Amino acid sequence: MTKTMLKPHTPKGFRDILPEEALKRRFVLGKIITVLERFGYDPLETPAIEYASILEGKYGEEERLIYKFKDRGDRDLALRFDLTVPLARVITQYGQTIPAPFKRYQIQPVWRAEKPQAGRFREFLQCDFDIIGVATPIADAEIIAVVDNILTDLGFTKYLILFNDRRVMDKVIKQSGIKTKDTLKIIRTLDKLEKIGEEEVIAELLKQGLAQTKIEMLMALLGRRPLLPKKKTEELSLEPIDAVMSQLKNFAIPQKRVFYTPTLARGLDYYTGMIIEATIEGYAAGSVGGGGRYDKLIGIFSGRSIPAVGFAFGIDRLMEAMLALNLFPICKTTQVLVTIFREDLLPASAKLVNELRTLGFNSEMYLDPSEKLARQIKYADKKGVPFVVIIGPDEVGNGTVTIKNLESGMQETIPRSELAKKLS
Amino acid sequence: MTKTMLKPHTPKGFRDILPEEALKRRFVLGKIITVLERFGYDPLETPAIEYASILEGKYGEEERLIYKFKDRGDRDLALRFDLTVPLARVITQYGQTIPAPFKRYQIQPVWRAEKPQAGRFREFLQCDFDIIGVATPIADAEIIAVVDNILTDLGFTKYLILFNDRRVMDKVIKQSGIKTKDTLKIIRTLDKLEKIGEEEVIAELLKQGLAQTKIEMLMALLGRRPLLPKKKTEELSLEPIDAVMSQLKNFAIPQKRVFYTPTLARGLDYYTGMIIEATIEGYAAGSVGGGGRYDKLIGIFSGRSIPAVGFAFGIDRLMEAMLALNLFPICKTTQVLVTIFREDLLPASAKLVNELRTLGFNSEMYLDPSEKLARQIKYADKKGVPFVVIIGPDEVGNGTVTIKNLESGMQETIPRSELAKKLS
Repeated sequence: MTKTMLKPHTPKGFRDILPEEALKRRFVLGKIITVLERFGYDPLETPAIEYASILEGKYGEEERLIYKFKDRGDRDLALRFDLTVPLARVITQYGQTIPAPFKRYQIQPVWRAEKPQAGRFREFLQCDFDIIGVATPIADAEIIAVVDNILTDLGFTKYLILFNDRRVMDKVIKQSGIKTKDTLKIIRTLDKLEKIGEEEVIAELLKQGLAQTKIEMLMALLGRRPLLPKKKTEELSLEPIDAVMSQLKNFAIPQKRVFYTPTLARGLDYYTGMIIEATIEGYAAGSVGGGGRYDKLIGIFSGRSIPAVGFAFGIDRLMEAMLALNLFPICKTTQVLVTIFREDLLPASAKLVNELRTLGFNSEMYLDPSEKLARQIKYADKKGVPFVVIIGPDEVGNGTVTIKNLESGMQETIPRSELAKKLS
Repeated sequence: MTKTMLKPHTPKGFRDILPEEALKRRFVLGKIITVLERFGYDPLETPAIEYASILEGKYGEEERLIYKFKDRGDRDLALRFDLTVPLARVITQYGQTIPAPFKRYQIQPVWRAEKPQAGRFREFLQCDFDIIGVATPIADAEIIAVVDNILTDLGFTKYLILFNDRRVMDKVIKQSGIKTKDTLKIIRTLDKLEKIGEEEVIAELLKQGLAQTKIEMLMALLGRRPLLPKKKTEELSLEPIDAVMSQLKNFAIPQKRVFYTPTLARGLDYYTGMIIEATIEGYAAGSVGGGGRYDKLIGIFSGRSIPAVGFAFGIDRLMEAMLALNLFPICKTTQVLVTIFREDLLPASAKLVNELRTLGFNSEMYLDPSEKLARQIKYADKKGVPFVVIIGPDEVGNGTVTIKNLESGMQETIPRSELAKKLS
């Protein structure tokens, strides 16, 4: 083994998840998984490494961000880039052995060679859940219900699920007199409305060569202007949106939580029906995840059209929002540290810590009796352990323990039998 | 998007974890994490991608199995190969901000470009837990206690923790008259005793040029022969072994579970003290994990010696052993599927499934009312859902539900208010 003397560190865009954050992650994932399983979603995991050909041609111009390499057998491999393309592969690879409909969740890291910037990483955890094989608005509504249940269970009270539909959007574009081939370009521009404002968007549309009259019609149909005299417009049918909205009451979701947002786009070349986005009030970055219906992607490997609807939470975003709103409980592993007063009293400390563990308390015994008591307590303090227990010769003699609350600094000697009650 | 018509699949040595296995994994990891946190171990995660230089020079001849590649900035990167070298990096990188001692667990996949063979994968999940910064036999004993608690909590009743010590082994070699420089070679040969038998081992030692008399002495000191007359041997001191053994009672571990195995080696160039291995009776592959004390690895990036002791479970091995011994409970997400009898009766089914979820039952409503009842039930059957509930017009009319047990085929109509009791 060689010794490297330079201070080692992670590559740019990568990070360690140290205990404090790892415990918070565990809290969030635990809540999410409980909801997903309550709705009958099954876990799935796919490998970090796929054949590059599985991923190629699926991500448009983002494809350049895929981590690719050759293995020793000169095969072209690639790191997982999202959780949807692997799902499409799984659906085709296992065929009939997978139940249909297939409701799965998948929580795994993905890797993207993005420019690292504050809060954006090259490795990040995604949480996807999808319903494959059902084309009904009931399935769409269930996805909304799951999002709603997860956000509520995480403690959010003020959030909105923005809602749109690709088919409605297509009609708006068409009725504005815009050519079909320009649809995507226009939609991508409209998607910036919240970010850059109407004025900028209109400037951009003009620059793209769209006539002022068409822009006016578009803005009117999107509800941003009073509607023009009827002669030039038909009534815009919101049927696909109503179909999902009317299902929400079946899932006991208040309609006011779901907000029709005619300009919501989210990479529309991918979606074929419903489009949704979850936004948290009081969280600057806004969105914590998005999804919708995408009936043409899952069948890409089999050449069939397979209905699919789903949602992806960004775990980092969700955790940021929870931090901003102070929704995390105190996440600590160890509830109590039992110190060792003197080497010969170790068995007394050991006996107590065993009992506490049996009672379900996460408990540590300090593992080095040669360390001074002050040092042992300092360790507990640094680790954020709330309680320290001391068993010296007096305590052993009269069946007591001394308990110190590290937050308040209070210390008292109590009968050993009362310790469990004191700790809980 | 291009369409690929070839049936897609995972690269050799990689695999998908489909729901049935993913649920079993969740069960195993849940049990393990509960024990680890009960003992006060904190979770840690490190990135999948490290600078190649962090990993290079750490794994001996296994280094050729590291997945390496260059990123777009021409940096040499490598995929996580184990969980110990990243821990060594973390300890050096974060220094004083990490509590000392540091008790951490880490459950993450690692990647090794091994020849794929039955049951051996190029991506596999490891579970490591370690105590950094404590050199006492108490810390060694705690690691044994955690292993013991995990195996018990997973349901194993017959297992052994094989136990040896590098220092004792070194003495055995020395007292046999073997040169220090040959120690490692001899130890690696002795490590095969269980696998290839004594005869083969002796043949190999002879081939390595070891004199017959030295081999006899070695075998005697290892307890495989009656001890030779005292004149040529001192009493072999088992002090390091006794020191740990005597701590076991403090952790309430029966001594008979821990079995002194003088030939146990496990890659001894790495260990500096205790060496352990967990083996399951009735599981052909035997070992489900191993570990020990390694006081020279964690400080490799800082040039210091930092005491460390730990253990690594192979999650695949553990799951294989549990399967072999039939220790898995039934792992299913959905407990009950509520069917939709007819589109107009959907609200009745929806109301019921909401209630069941509120009561804590993992429940699904079938999401397509146009499907025949038989097809809905077939879905439940394929997914392994134990109960199906039917709410037709009669049931809605008289406040009942029909419940079908898919395992027994039994079907009965009961008052709606009795359903929850029936399901639990």
